[in-house]
Amino acid sequence: MQLLKDKIIKEGKVLSDTVLKVDSFLNHQIDPLLMKEIGEEFANRYSNEVITKVLTIESSGIAPATMLGLTIGAPVVFARKRKSLTLSGNLYSSNVHSFTKNETSEISVSKDFLSEDDNVLIIDDFLANGEAVKGLLDIAEQAGANVVGVGIVIEKGFQQGGMLLREQGVRIESLANIKSLANGQVEFFD
Amino acid sequence: MQLLKDKIIKEGKVLSDTVLKVDSFLNHQIDPLLMKEIGEEFANRYSNEVITKVLTIESSGIAPATMLGLTIGAPVVFARKRKSLTLSGNLYSSNVHSFTKNETSEISVSKDFLSEDDNVLIIDDFLANGEAVKGLLDIAEQAGANVVGVGIVIEKGFQQGGMLLREQGVRIESLANIKSLANGQVEFFD
Repeated sequence: MQLLKDKIIKEGKVLSDTVLKVDSFLNHQIDPLLMKEIGEEFANRYSNEVITKVLTIESSGIAPATMLGLTIGAPVVFARKRKSLTLSGNLYSSNVHSFTKNETSEISVSKDFLSEDDNVLIIDDFLANGEAVKGLLDIAEQAGANVVGVGIVIEKGFQQGGMLLREQGVRIESLANIKSLANGQVEFFD
Repeated sequence: MQLLKDKIIKEGKVLSDTVLKVDSFLNHQIDPLLMKEIGEEFANRYSNEVITKVLTIESSGIAPATMLGLTIGAPVVFARKRKSLTLSGNLYSSNVHSFTKNETSEISVSKDFLSEDDNVLIIDDFLANGEAVKGLLDIAEQAGANVVGVGIVIEKGFQQGGMLLREQGVRIESLANIKSLANGQVEFFD
């Protein structure tokens, strides 16, 4: 997705060979118009599928997932990273390790909002080691839901998550796939 | 906002005299079309103001804030509840106590995305004791930004946050203002 790649080149900050900061439009400040374009692009790539539910994880997945949901007319469910007092019992849960934050969180989705009748598209902001996507796939599997695929805003293609998931037969559509962050430069695949 | 009130009556679950669960469309599952209508309603109510930035807090504020940002063409910044490794230094911070979760979090916004040049509209999903809004007002004040007002999806008008903030001269627009949750029934003001 050229618009997104241009934005990454213009505003992304390469903090190391593995860390790209896109806080100005995706992870802290949000560019709503770009999120709308991203939602429409996910909808285009999965236009051959009937999607009944968009599944994401708080917090940075929510904006692109909601724009996708608006485009295709499907509700969005975001997995919570910790249990609140009003989200109790009746949960699907899975453990997700974040290498960025260096911590393991339990993520949860209420059984009220995901079932064996659902055709699910999983959305997340980044794919690196694939931990978050694996947790969401695990939750969808617990629900007996069918996962049509995964939509990722920015894949770090130089890390293994995407490769391992594709080897397992998971369809992954990344809107920008990064080949390298070496020497402070963003290089994309394609 | 009648559409929202109807949704609350239809899908909201009154768990106690003070707790209303709206997990089916706002806090866990998200209704994207309703969020779009909510964003447009906030834009209407503040149509007399020039807003340069929408300020909210993760996670449930993100969807309505992003739809507002899309409507008025302004970027959204969501305050983070904990520091990640890529969000460090150069921060405005404030402490927020959540009575629902019974914990105090430090919320933070990067100084890169809020300044004295900004006209800010603060958005949040719920207003009860006003703790989150007070934290966001504190952060806007640290930035020297001008706050034009606050937009709340659901105000618990039977709690004191809204009254105390309005007494301090803060403009608050709530799209649904709840008078009582007694006897398992939702009663609105107006």
